[in-house]
Parts: sequence; C-alpha cells; structure tokens
Amino acid sequence: MRHKSFGNMQCPIARSLEQVGEWWSILILRDAFHGLTRFDEFQRSLGIAPNVLARRLKTLTESGLLERRRYSERPPRDEYLLTERGRDFRPVLWALLAWGNKHLAPEGKSVIVVDSETGVEADPVLVDRLSGRTLAAPAFRSAPGPAADDHTRRRHASAAHKRLAAGHTPDTSSADGARRNRGVRVP
Amino acid sequence: MRHKSFGNMQCPIARSLEQVGEWWSILILRDAFHGLTRFDEFQRSLGIAPNVLARRLKTLTESGLLERRRYSERPPRDEYLLTERGRDFRPVLWALLAWGNKHLAPEGKSVIVVDSETGVEADPVLVDRLSGRTLAAPAFRSAPGPAADDHTRRRHASAAHKRLAAGHTPDTSSADGARRNRGVRVP
Repeated sequence: MRHKSFGNMQCPIARSLEQVGEWWSILILRDAFHGLTRFDEFQRSLGIAPNVLARRLKTLTESGLLERRRYSERPPRDEYLLTERGRDFRPVLWALLAWGNKHLAPEGKSVIVVDSETGVEADPVLVDRLSGRTLAAPAFRSAPGPAADDHTRRRHASAAHKRLAAGHTPDTSSADGARRNRGVRVP
Repeated sequence: MRHKSFGNMQCPIARSLEQVGEWWSILILRDAFHGLTRFDEFQRSLGIAPNVLARRLKTLTESGLLERRRYSERPPRDEYLLTERGRDFRPVLWALLAWGNKHLAPEGKSVIVVDSETGVEADPVLVDRLSGRTLAAPAFRSAPGPAADDHTRRRHASAAHKRLAAGHTPDTSSADGARRNRGVRVP
C-alpha cells in the first residue's frame, strides 16, 4: 500500500518514509519495541482512534514491519509482532530519541537508552562500522550509489558544486569509486 | 507551532516527531544537507506545492531547525540555513537511509554515505559512544530517565514485565541507577 509519492523514489530516505507511512506508525513501532502486541494495548498506550490504529497496523503489516498472528480462535483475536525489518528500524527510533533528548528536553531526559544488564546509560551515536568514526558532515556525505539513476546523480553533482562554491572539501568520489571501494569492506 | 499531539509528550521520540512535523519536512532537511537554501531550489527538487513548501519551511524555522536569512533586499528574498539543531538531525536521516538501503533497495543502493575525502562507502551503525558497542536489543533497551513522570515509568515497568514473561533479561535498572551511572560517563 502506497500513501504518498515523494518526487524521486530512488532516494532511500523517501522510500523509508513511504513505508513507515506516518508518525503514528513510528509510535506504534516504539510501543512494539516495548513489548506491546495487541490492538487494545496499542490503543490504550496511544489514545488513538480505533480506525486510525487499524489502518496503521494494516500498513505496517503490509510493509513487512509487523506480522499478524492469530492467538485466539474463539473469539478471533490477532496480535502484531515485529519482523526482522521492523526490528531493524530501532536505530532510527534511538537516533530520534537522542536528538529529542539533546534539543527538546530542557527539563531533563524522560527516556534514555540503557545497557539491559547494568542499567548504565548509553550515549547513542551513529558511526561507520568499519572505521568507528562518527558519521558527521563534512567528513562524511551522501553520494550516488551503484544503482543511482540520472536524477540522483544530478542531485548529488549539484550538491558537490554547492560545496565547492562554499569552500568545502572537493568531491572526489563517484559511484565507480564506491563500487571499487566496496571490495575493502569486511562483509 | 504544534501540529499534532501524541499522547504522552514526555517521550523524546514523540516530541521529535512533533517538531519535525511531516515527511516533507524530512525531505526538506535532506535537501538542506545537500546545500539547497532557496525556495525555488527546494521546490524544483521536491516538486511540492508552493503553499505546502512555504508552510513546512515556516514550521522548520519556528522549530529552530532552519534559520531564515535575507539575501536580497530588492526584490526581498530569503534563504533557509540549517541551524545546529537542524544539522544534528542528520544521523536520523542516515539511519533511515541505512534502513532503506537494507530493506527497500532490491535493485541495489542508489544513495550511500561516503568518506568525503576518499569516497569509500561507510556502513552506518548506531553505537554507544563510550563502549563502542552496537545499540541493539536485547543488550540495550530504553528506560525512564531522571525526568520521567509516572506515565513514562508505568509504560516502562509494563514493558519490563512483558520482557520477563517472555523470558528475557531481567530489568535491573532504574532512574536512580541511571542517575548514579551517569557519573561514569566521559562528558
């Protein structure tokens, strides 16, 4: 089920947004990570209209982030469990959490990420898995990948042009470079 | 400007969603990271209705992710620049990008994150800054922070109960534990 169409759908960010659908979907995923599985549990947690919740659960199921499982035949009752695709979304939520804690919590943090065994607070940061370096501009940037079409290439070429005009690092990469360099990566 | 209100607004994820507002806002931020600053540039890139774009730029400015700067007096023209709060949102975008590349790009990656100097592809992963360990369940989980209210504590207590019922790691942390443990962290 598609909800919106965002210009160039090659962009993995736009595709992700399309799949997850709407803000409510993200809060449903958040609650699923907290162990909620049943319609009435989600409804109680979110205070959301039943028809909206039903629609969002359907979308998340069709997008493969949740799977529906019948847990009672009489009366017929389903629960919703995270799939691998759904579980993989958690870093996005924790990146949002870290951003919210930094910028939108003047009274202090209400929710944190902790080590499950020790309870020690974690400090979520996005890094490059191989080098361990923090992923931040200008040291890192997005670039066309091997499957990029002309639109995606033009968009990044124009961004490179703007960076040069602003006196930033010259753009030395290319999809070919990226392809070659993939040999370097540990699988 | 507030758009929606998501149940318990203590949750930093819900707050973040409220500030960023809508999917279009995220794609505007994506384009801002590509160096776009002007109304017509965003419009060309996104193929978005001018009134929608104007509204989203206004929201992002009021939320402090973009700042408006006049670059021409005659005719009056403004541009939109990322603030520190806006630039800090980039890891969220790259986490979405990594998820989209893993799950929604059967034809290969169209956009990747690269080292700006070498062009080598990065592999974005969320880790705990101190220990370097990958942030993933069940080794990590979210928990009430020092500013948590009763609602937030109840939500996490119920999640801990569900984890126990499912045979997962017992919940040994608490806000007090988190507070104590914060002394361990390098600032």
